[in-house]
Amino acid sequence: MPRTRSALPSPTGPVRLGPDTHAALRPAAAGIDAGFWHARRATNARVSIPQGPGLLESAGNLHNLRLAAGAAEGGFRGAYPFVDTDVYKWLEAAAWQLGQDADESLATEVDRIVSLVAAAQQADGYLNTWFQLVKGGERYRDLRWGHELYCAGHLIQAAVAHHRATGRAELLDVARGFADHIDSVFGLPASGRPIDGIDGHPEVETALVELYRETGERRYLDLAGYFVDRHGHGLLGGEAYCQDRVPLREATDVEGHAVRQLYLLAAAADLAAETGDAELRAAGERLWHSMTTAKTHLTGGLGAHHDQEDFGDPYELPNERAYCETCAAIASVQWSWRLALLTGEARYSDLIERTLYNGFLAGVSLDGERWLYVNPLQVRDGHTDSGGDQSARRTRWFRCACCPPNAMRLLASLEHYLASGDDRGLQIHQYVTGRYAAGPVTVRAETDYPWHGTVALTVEETPADRPWTLSLRIPQWAREFRVRCGTRTYDRTDAPLSDGWLRLERTWAPGDQIVLELGLEPRLTAADPRVDAVRGCVAIERGPLVHCLEQVDHPGGGLDDIVLDPTRPLAVKHRPDLLGGITTVVAAGRRRSIPDRGWWPYAEVDGTHPEPDGEPVELTAVPYHAWANREDGSMRVWLPTS
Amino acid sequence: MPRTRSALPSPTGPVRLGPDTHAALRPAAAGIDAGFWHARRATNARVSIPQGPGLLESAGNLHNLRLAAGAAEGGFRGAYPFVDTDVYKWLEAAAWQLGQDADESLATEVDRIVSLVAAAQQADGYLNTWFQLVKGGERYRDLRWGHELYCAGHLIQAAVAHHRATGRAELLDVARGFADHIDSVFGLPASGRPIDGIDGHPEVETALVELYRETGERRYLDLAGYFVDRHGHGLLGGEAYCQDRVPLREATDVEGHAVRQLYLLAAAADLAAETGDAELRAAGERLWHSMTTAKTHLTGGLGAHHDQEDFGDPYELPNERAYCETCAAIASVQWSWRLALLTGEARYSDLIERTLYNGFLAGVSLDGERWLYVNPLQVRDGHTDSGGDQSARRTRWFRCACCPPNAMRLLASLEHYLASGDDRGLQIHQYVTGRYAAGPVTVRAETDYPWHGTVALTVEETPADRPWTLSLRIPQWAREFRVRCGTRTYDRTDAPLSDGWLRLERTWAPGDQIVLELGLEPRLTAADPRVDAVRGCVAIERGPLVHCLEQVDHPGGGLDDIVLDPTRPLAVKHRPDLLGGITTVVAAGRRRSIPDRGWWPYAEVDGTHPEPDGEPVELTAVPYHAWANREDGSMRVWLPTS
Repeated sequence: MPRTRSALPSPTGPVRLGPDTHAALRPAAAGIDAGFWHARRATNARVSIPQGPGLLESAGNLHNLRLAAGAAEGGFRGAYPFVDTDVYKWLEAAAWQLGQDADESLATEVDRIVSLVAAAQQADGYLNTWFQLVKGGERYRDLRWGHELYCAGHLIQAAVAHHRATGRAELLDVARGFADHIDSVFGLPASGRPIDGIDGHPEVETALVELYRETGERRYLDLAGYFVDRHGHGLLGGEAYCQDRVPLREATDVEGHAVRQLYLLAAAADLAAETGDAELRAAGERLWHSMTTAKTHLTGGLGAHHDQEDFGDPYELPNERAYCETCAAIASVQWSWRLALLTGEARYSDLIERTLYNGFLAGVSLDGERWLYVNPLQVRDGHTDSGGDQSARRTRWFRCACCPPNAMRLLASLEHYLASGDDRGLQIHQYVTGRYAAGPVTVRAETDYPWHGTVALTVEETPADRPWTLSLRIPQWAREFRVRCGTRTYDRTDAPLSDGWLRLERTWAPGDQIVLELGLEPRLTAADPRVDAVRGCVAIERGPLVHCLEQVDHPGGGLDDIVLDPTRPLAVKHRPDLLGGITTVVAAGRRRSIPDRGWWPYAEVDGTHPEPDGEPVELTAVPYHAWANREDGSMRVWLPTS
Repeated sequence: MPRTRSALPSPTGPVRLGPDTHAALRPAAAGIDAGFWHARRATNARVSIPQGPGLLESAGNLHNLRLAAGAAEGGFRGAYPFVDTDVYKWLEAAAWQLGQDADESLATEVDRIVSLVAAAQQADGYLNTWFQLVKGGERYRDLRWGHELYCAGHLIQAAVAHHRATGRAELLDVARGFADHIDSVFGLPASGRPIDGIDGHPEVETALVELYRETGERRYLDLAGYFVDRHGHGLLGGEAYCQDRVPLREATDVEGHAVRQLYLLAAAADLAAETGDAELRAAGERLWHSMTTAKTHLTGGLGAHHDQEDFGDPYELPNERAYCETCAAIASVQWSWRLALLTGEARYSDLIERTLYNGFLAGVSLDGERWLYVNPLQVRDGHTDSGGDQSARRTRWFRCACCPPNAMRLLASLEHYLASGDDRGLQIHQYVTGRYAAGPVTVRAETDYPWHGTVALTVEETPADRPWTLSLRIPQWAREFRVRCGTRTYDRTDAPLSDGWLRLERTWAPGDQIVLELGLEPRLTAADPRVDAVRGCVAIERGPLVHCLEQVDHPGGGLDDIVLDPTRPLAVKHRPDLLGGITTVVAAGRRRSIPDRGWWPYAEVDGTHPEPDGEPVELTAVPYHAWANREDGSMRVWLPTS
């Protein structure tokens, strides 16, 4: 199927690569019309997004915009200088949603809020209600904590989405005004622009690349490159927290505040894709490898420390104090997707799948009305919850409400992370019920994934006479799979696999069928022994899903005295009645009887290792993403085996 | 030995119980004149305490006092409203030191700094340089974070020490002035005093009891009782952090900020001792049990969270993120000592011993010049240190410099935590080379503890004709011991033991010898299985000492791939050359060879459990209290066994 890159469609989602891209793959159009993600996206569209304006009103965000426009009275509301971004991220979510479904009442709300944003902007393009209202208009004097460029970044992202998805330019004009202002202020000393500086919270960098893609204005790309490369030179005091300890090009590991690190890395991948910068690409590949090897939780969650919202040390992956901010999961998906496109390698989408189904989705309640900011892998028996944003209990909205609208924007744009195209054909990264289209090719998919492992694909449109390659990602977790394609059947022993891709090159005809069967036998997973937090434990997984125990399914006690018997088989039980319909994994275990040691819980090892007895108990493991949707209680992903 | 309580001496240290005390025991006089603690106290006296004034000058604390007195120019220096307490804690340390040794230059420094404090006090008794200088004299408007009463508490403690140890009244006059001011302002609404409030950081409560003991003024005791009982009623918003979630009398577990919890509990024990309040006593005993059972690290360290410096959940005892603030160890010693006196039970001094030799002493460098604020039980291979106060590397002084002068005051008053007396005789809680005296009884001790297990005791003074009981604490860790007393020899099988005490009742004569031999065979210790962080691991202990591995002793790699072989014997090696002279424990281990799992550190359990091979390595375990006195590197207390 020889054709030029420019013949490929430009889907209306995030990461519309520029015409001169150096990326191996280009995002392909896709649609989700039934199944697992369709249901979650419907809740996002029907519940979460429509509730946004009311929440932004009651939290004061919209009031601040009116105040800055001189259209309201009172004081600034909110605790942080970045509260405007809650509005911008909601606008971005709504814009992606409007791109799929011309909902009139949503369109009216978007218009109304875009007008509030536009009215709050100052004549020279600057816009930040905190600095305008609280700091007397002082600008760019607290780059470490002020978040002014971070706010600009989210404004730009929202504007790009609004323009790309709906064709409307009002918000893009506001964003360009602010971007031009920033461009007139920031630059190397030799540029004559007054400030050589960066923002303590990266985001503007990746946003400026998208603005370049949307407008074709090269100076936005250059400004993004300037900001990326000025990190790590001590402009903010040299803290890892602010991504200022070491230049990205020299970094050997992810570090500091997880979301900041990941947004910066997304920008580096964007730059490498648009400019062919091999050093930035290598840095991204290197840091992704060090992150996944030693700093990623089983759920795809990232960030080991509550304190400073920080990546920890290598293999420091605590359970009850896992931070795993929902925003970090989202940022990880954004970064990995850029690397998937840049390199063409399947493993980046392996991590995306794991993150989407586990570390990300746990952040959103089943009803779309409540959220988790942090996503621990354990809640202990006897847990005393501190409440507040970092609570292990779902919350309607947060004081720092970064996560909910961030989750809304990812769900609303999810179909743009599923497939890609290149000169050879179509690559399917994630399996949904719907359609994938790249160039002249359209493939229809039907599946009940992740509950069942069968994906039935039908070629709907294809050039009649030219071979092209359908590439299917074989998930990293998949021990066994089978593919039927016409009269051929492949399995792991003879499939044309390369680098995680099953490559089917054919001259296809409409109606051709391909059936992928992924083995979903539940499995027990153990960790590298350097992950001290889970020594002697296993986790239950099934397909892409990490499972967990919840106390509510195990009456008669807590979870911290439970032991799983790894010698007994795991059983699968579909439970249409439970949590909106899930598949559980049932395992055999017992409650250990713990001898009374008096007041001191440490004792000399006595050399004998009697197998402790204990009451047998049937363990019911639910998907981790569905936890915390029933009564409060303890929860565990990792279970001791002795 | 029938005699009245008042016939017992009143040693000049912390906790001089009042004449009507309800405590079972009274502190006895003791002196340390050689051995382990003598050396550490000599460093404290010769290095740490003398360096205090210079550090307080360069950090700005003394400048602030001069500024408040109108005797300097410039602005307030320091980041916190409680910086005055660094001065007060140093004064307390210096006062205890002067009580033992009339060092003229130290006395001159104390006089000078007492004068600065006195000059900074306002006419009505109020004193807090932050509020006087930064807040325009605004008072008691931010009780949650202002620390005004906390500062008053440390001023009172310093003044009591100064008066008790040296007989001087200048600082006591200042403290009484402030205490009287507080007493005129705080009280229940019915009292007519304007503020019904408490301080977010307890400390004034225990200080006021000591002020009552020193002055005999009952209203200070009443005020302490008022403050203790007003915690837990939401006066500060109801946060556990501020000890305001639940009244102490109803609490079932320690919670919130560890140091705040422990200082409040010390005050409750003080009150129970002075008033006989059975409910407060029961609360203290209950919370001590729940703390030691499920919230205490092996080192005696307390506080599982960096975030909020908080006790965590039960059995949440992380290693690398153990907070274990040095101040929390000190507060634990103070509280446990009060419970030991109140109840007469030995286990409180068991915890004191463990804390002193491990979790506390690790906070002080061998040279007395550098400090740890947090005391983790692990520093990982590849650790990136954030620097700052919570660094895992020793620091000369902190931005929040609470720990160093706190450690100085405990070391300078340590001989007051060693022994007690009651109507039956003398109880020896901690073994040192020196003298213990209670009433007409004096006992001399010679020991090289904790390096050797022999303690030779000689009765020096005794009534000639009346029996009394010498009580020796048999440490909770001691598997084996022997006591020779005249012609009798006891061991664990036949010793007159009760509740951790070995009771020797005799009519003693001067020159009578008692030799206690505690078995110091090194041992491997395991934890309650609910302590997830150390599953599959053991720790090396010897006597009261917790040991750890340091990377510097294990060239050729890190520590996180090391496995200890629990089937091989442990050896003891005295190392006069190392770290000022220590005893190491040598164990057999290996470095595990870790298979390359690609980019994902989790993999399906394959059912076979091959014993992994790996290069044998001799493990050298040094006492935990001596760690971080050589080059930076990784460290582990808990070691995997497979």
